[in-house]
Amino acid sequence: MGMVGGGRGAFIGAVHRMAANLDGKIELVAGAFSSDPKKSKLSGKDFFLDPSRVYGSYQEMAKKESELPVGERIDFVSIVVQNHLHHAVAKHFLEAGFNVICDKPLAYDLKEARDLRRIVKKSGKVFALTHNYTGYPMVKEARDFARKGKLGRILKVVTEYPQGYAVGDIENKNDGKIASWRTDPKIAGISNCIGDIGTHADNLGAYITGLEIEEMCAELTAFIPGRTLDDDGNILIRYKGGAKGLLYASQISNGDENNLNIRIYGTKASLEWHQEDPNELIIKYHDKPRQILRRGNGYVCNAAETNTRTPFGHPEGFIEAFANVYLAAAKSIAAEVAGKKLPKNPDFPTVEDGIRGMAFIATAVKSSNSKSKWTKMLK
Amino acid sequence: MGMVGGGRGAFIGAVHRMAANLDGKIELVAGAFSSDPKKSKLSGKDFFLDPSRVYGSYQEMAKKESELPVGERIDFVSIVVQNHLHHAVAKHFLEAGFNVICDKPLAYDLKEARDLRRIVKKSGKVFALTHNYTGYPMVKEARDFARKGKLGRILKVVTEYPQGYAVGDIENKNDGKIASWRTDPKIAGISNCIGDIGTHADNLGAYITGLEIEEMCAELTAFIPGRTLDDDGNILIRYKGGAKGLLYASQISNGDENNLNIRIYGTKASLEWHQEDPNELIIKYHDKPRQILRRGNGYVCNAAETNTRTPFGHPEGFIEAFANVYLAAAKSIAAEVAGKKLPKNPDFPTVEDGIRGMAFIATAVKSSNSKSKWTKMLK
Amino acid sequence: MGMVGGGRGAFIGAVHRMAANLDGKIELVAGAFSSDPKKSKLSGKDFFLDPSRVYGSYQEMAKKESELPVGERIDFVSIVVQNHLHHAVAKHFLEAGFNVICDKPLAYDLKEARDLRRIVKKSGKVFALTHNYTGYPMVKEARDFARKGKLGRILKVVTEYPQGYAVGDIENKNDGKIASWRTDPKIAGISNCIGDIGTHADNLGAYITGLEIEEMCAELTAFIPGRTLDDDGNILIRYKGGAKGLLYASQISNGDENNLNIRIYGTKASLEWHQEDPNELIIKYHDKPRQILRRGNGYVCNAAETNTRTPFGHPEGFIEAFANVYLAAAKSIAAEVAGKKLPKNPDFPTVEDGIRGMAFIATAVKSSNSKSKWTKMLK
Amino acid sequence: MGMVGGGRGAFIGAVHRMAANLDGKIELVAGAFSSDPKKSKLSGKDFFLDPSRVYGSYQEMAKKESELPVGERIDFVSIVVQNHLHHAVAKHFLEAGFNVICDKPLAYDLKEARDLRRIVKKSGKVFALTHNYTGYPMVKEARDFARKGKLGRILKVVTEYPQGYAVGDIENKNDGKIASWRTDPKIAGISNCIGDIGTHADNLGAYITGLEIEEMCAELTAFIPGRTLDDDGNILIRYKGGAKGLLYASQISNGDENNLNIRIYGTKASLEWHQEDPNELIIKYHDKPRQILRRGNGYVCNAAETNTRTPFGHPEGFIEAFANVYLAAAKSIAAEVAGKKLPKNPDFPTVEDGIRGMAFIATAVKSSNSKSKWTKMLK
Repeated sequence: MGMVGGGRGAFIGAVHRMAANLDGKIELVAGAFSSDPKKSKLSGKDFFLDPSRVYGSYQEMAKKESELPVGERIDFVSIVVQNHLHHAVAKHFLEAGFNVICDKPLAYDLKEARDLRRIVKKSGKVFALTHNYTGYPMVKEARDFARKGKLGRILKVVTEYPQGYAVGDIENKNDGKIASWRTDPKIAGISNCIGDIGTHADNLGAYITGLEIEEMCAELTAFIPGRTLDDDGNILIRYKGGAKGLLYASQISNGDENNLNIRIYGTKASLEWHQEDPNELIIKYHDKPRQILRRGNGYVCNAAETNTRTPFGHPEGFIEAFANVYLAAAKSIAAEVAGKKLPKNPDFPTVEDGIRGMAFIATAVKSSNSKSKWTKMLK
Repeated sequence: MGMVGGGRGAFIGAVHRMAANLDGKIELVAGAFSSDPKKSKLSGKDFFLDPSRVYGSYQEMAKKESELPVGERIDFVSIVVQNHLHHAVAKHFLEAGFNVICDKPLAYDLKEARDLRRIVKKSGKVFALTHNYTGYPMVKEARDFARKGKLGRILKVVTEYPQGYAVGDIENKNDGKIASWRTDPKIAGISNCIGDIGTHADNLGAYITGLEIEEMCAELTAFIPGRTLDDDGNILIRYKGGAKGLLYASQISNGDENNLNIRIYGTKASLEWHQEDPNELIIKYHDKPRQILRRGNGYVCNAAETNTRTPFGHPEGFIEAFANVYLAAAKSIAAEVAGKKLPKNPDFPTVEDGIRGMAFIATAVKSSNSKSKWTKMLK
Repeated sequence: MGMVGGGRGAFIGAVHRMAANLDGKIELVAGAFSSDPKKSKLSGKDFFLDPSRVYGSYQEMAKKESELPVGERIDFVSIVVQNHLHHAVAKHFLEAGFNVICDKPLAYDLKEARDLRRIVKKSGKVFALTHNYTGYPMVKEARDFARKGKLGRILKVVTEYPQGYAVGDIENKNDGKIASWRTDPKIAGISNCIGDIGTHADNLGAYITGLEIEEMCAELTAFIPGRTLDDDGNILIRYKGGAKGLLYASQISNGDENNLNIRIYGTKASLEWHQEDPNELIIKYHDKPRQILRRGNGYVCNAAETNTRTPFGHPEGFIEAFANVYLAAAKSIAAEVAGKKLPKNPDFPTVEDGIRGMAFIATAVKSSNSKSKWTKMLK
Repeated sequence: MGMVGGGRGAFIGAVHRMAANLDGKIELVAGAFSSDPKKSKLSGKDFFLDPSRVYGSYQEMAKKESELPVGERIDFVSIVVQNHLHHAVAKHFLEAGFNVICDKPLAYDLKEARDLRRIVKKSGKVFALTHNYTGYPMVKEARDFARKGKLGRILKVVTEYPQGYAVGDIENKNDGKIASWRTDPKIAGISNCIGDIGTHADNLGAYITGLEIEEMCAELTAFIPGRTLDDDGNILIRYKGGAKGLLYASQISNGDENNLNIRIYGTKASLEWHQEDPNELIIKYHDKPRQILRRGNGYVCNAAETNTRTPFGHPEGFIEAFANVYLAAAKSIAAEVAGKKLPKNPDFPTVEDGIRGMAFIATAVKSSNSKSKWTKMLK
């Protein structure tokens, strides 16, 4: 694979590389790691790459790699640049004939996102979006449980995603540590917190339940003085079919780390999953003992089993889940490169998930800007 | 003490009696346990009462007890009847010169509640409302922590109170087990779930933080077919001063028991308390290890210490917390009966908490009935 | 009931009174609360007793109460004096015709314990020992689970009971806070830690499993300088029938509170119960999801259900469990007093449990004193 | 690197490869994956290796790789064969001039282990043993905490390592799923359970505390009918300096997964770490709130920080910890290969840890075989 962005010191680029490395099936061989060619070269050295395949720009990379013979050139590009560049870079590589794995959110805004969908479809290439939380085996178990009807009819979905890393000593120094570009509307888009982590929360619920949002009432807040974009958001949701939802995301929740949790209540049972304790899935009944389903056991569904690397009790974490998205995408990519038929219903997030995410952001911001009126979900 | 309501088989009456018994300082000596005189007599026998002080009606009880000499008659009455009778019974005893401990909610509606406040004030008697969750020692520690400014400025309050007992097999038989009167608007008032448990959640947050609600957006739902009153409610809150809130209560959350939880986020720290694990208080910081404060240790505040009966590690529960409300009220009542000056700032919920609770219900229902529009808090 | 010992400031006396009070079925009416008659009187006043029934000595109390007509005199005496007096006081009241509830350990040593068994049998009276941890509903559920064979054949029992309250700053000031008499061999007997809490741990395992100890290898330690009695003990156990055990108790386990836990492993399933989280019982299988059984649910056994006071999710604790021992004993006592047939297999610890406890202590000390050699269980 | 053993289907070989892959700094380039040359070739294909470097035997591999020029040949070999071959393979490669990373236990018996130490010393090569649990960041934090004296003087160490995977339906079919060679004394050595996981438990405690064992009393059991080697062991330990210990390991603990836990009690504080929840370290005090230290926070020690890959709240697991052993060893190996000075006090387990482990096994078996007498630690 090749990589655009993600040079020295970039968090998410490093995660993408570890996820790709883990199973020894994907090799990083080329990259344009920075818009500064010197930095890109240094990063390439860090990753033990052949200097001739470390490029000064993504345009150069697309061009040069296309010129290599099939089998030698990269099979896909991993895009880990800032939000406002996702569309341009993805478009460039798709049109140059490369498959793409792209960090979320899909694009700068909903309009760009829709355009990217058009380009993906036209290209016939594989496009994967790293909504990595769906890569956890016990999230796949939750999905299986829900989709098989074991929850009964779903009545309520409660999703919470509090982080505290940006609270800093906001009273005094305003030095919350959000990557500065994330709070810059020119780069991040119309939302910070909901765009960055609220979309993960929404995607997680959608992945498990399949429910579609009818309308929402969102209140976004910028608690940190000087911020123009939200660092906290609370949202009431009405799903199609009558279920109700409640979703919140926050970056000012002091002392919370990456506390993504979901609880789904149905007429027969409910389930609960906690990202910080990802190897367990809790099932609750009103008339039976609670059940704790644990990764790696023989009783889990096929998707949970095949996305597992270590035996039960040997905890898996964030990187392993991320790697599951890579593996699933790589399977489709390998088929595409080999000119074979793509797998049906592949288990990785696609451009459609990206569209939903961008619509979620756009609707939440629209609602919040209209004094938190109930607002129909955009598309 | 005397008791009105709470005969054989009534859950909350039994809890009130155990709470009163626990410390050997309050003795049940009289009662009108049922509107059916025969049932009242039988209940009195269960409780080993002198038959001459087991009455056929609360009116008879108030009359006869008033006629007994001071020192022999009851010092206060405990009212555990259905919501729609709270006002009448409380009024009757207050005007007959008795102190009152009353189950929540305060009254049938906000209007009655306001009238009761007038009567309480006029009577000069002690009036306690059993918002029992404030009786937990570690809730008192949370309050102390927040009120001393250790959280910094409060930014966000998340309160959740899911129960699942009423979900039953709602698809088929509609036999959710809510006490039938709770879903009867003539008895329960305008709300079931928010009235019964939502008010506890609201009261808990108010007790700890002291924040006042500016306005709210509430969506109440009756998921169980045939219900006219809500069995679930999700509420966004704006507090005076800029803090935001999110509160939900539910009786259809499959497999949840009495899962009242609160998380309060401030600029310096945040706290977390779980009713089902009440002996702990969790404090979180963005730059320091989490702290687990545990009941019975030397480092807790005075209020937490004095409301504790057993050493650390010997868990206390629901009844002990309930008994703390009784003990605190009994201290004021003893002073009142002895003609002494009442304690200042006594630590039990009063008629003012009751008013707030009824206003909370009224505002939530008003918002929900107007398609969940943002609605100013009533008073 | 009457009480011997347990005056002002005594921890365990207060617990016994709360346990007796809780259900409104037992009334404290007489006592000899201290060997100092003045202190006894003051304590009697605290408890609102008729001064004529507050006695200066237990001998006086037994005598005067015997002279009262049946129905007016106490039905039983609760003995909460120091270990070395248990035998004398119990003997005195049993021989005076009273039923007895006695704090554990049963006596000062095994010899006294055996003698007390003889006296109990001869008297025909009810004798209950407050091994209170068996009063928890979910311990009763565990017993039911094990006794019904749901664990299969039991292979291993791991019981741990670490407390840290006596660790103090032992390096410097030697002020660990163990009640001083507990470490005085003249009062406490031959063991402190194993005698005080090790016996609880042993009793808990025996109550659930019914296993008998064949032999043990015990290492007791007095970590606190200047101590003659143990403040820590680790024991390997061989049960009759081939199961193995591991039991430890400690008072120098820094920061542990009352951390009694038991895990029982069988060929079909295993179970786990934690005293500090007593409303849950965890069942584990090698090929099925874990189950969390929770107090108050419809699926628990009859003994767990009838020993429950509040609905699920309304936590019960230490006092409620203690009160269950009182209630069960009181049922037998009421039958005895009424001259009726005693209940068969009553569910409270008896003098036999006391004998086992004293034998456990004696064997552990014998093993430890012989350089921790394997030692046959005494009887 | 090259690998000996660990072909298709081998659990631990796959873990070693993932650990090596994760950071993109170690590349698998050669191997003798099976004693069956055909199987070795197939495995090499699975791992995308150059067929010319997939060997039919480890002897061939050592020979051919030695003949490659420095820089092209492997820098080290990873040995993941069965216990009884560790010594021979390691000896072969060390004497051929290669560095070694070897799975534990170090050798078939203590004698071989001592011989291997001699060979390692003579060779001057790097030798790392994969006691992987010491690779967890919060274990390193625990070590730092203990070694800095923050626990005070250590009084007691409790280590437990129950697994249940081998319990099967032992009553009937005797099909517990232990890899069959593990229970074969010719391959595994004198112990199964203590050798396989008991050594991990011992190593973990030694890593954190630095305590040396003076003597032990061990009782090993083979619960599964037909077994000659232990599947369960309970051990009392006396450490030099007066601390006491209690260690148990089990493979018949129904429903436990990989439940390695350690609690260390000191005069100032105690700590607790749970392998199945590895991102947390619990610190307990007798007079201060408990502290939860969590991986990835700024307050952790340098070793915990540098062994961390993802931000707090993004859980790391088993593979990441394993990879930390590889990374630390690789640093020393890179220095050795480059002819540079080796890092002082490198943070990975060495042949000395292996000797300790083999001595631990030998002493435990000796004690158990002598009817569980107290036995001095062998060396």
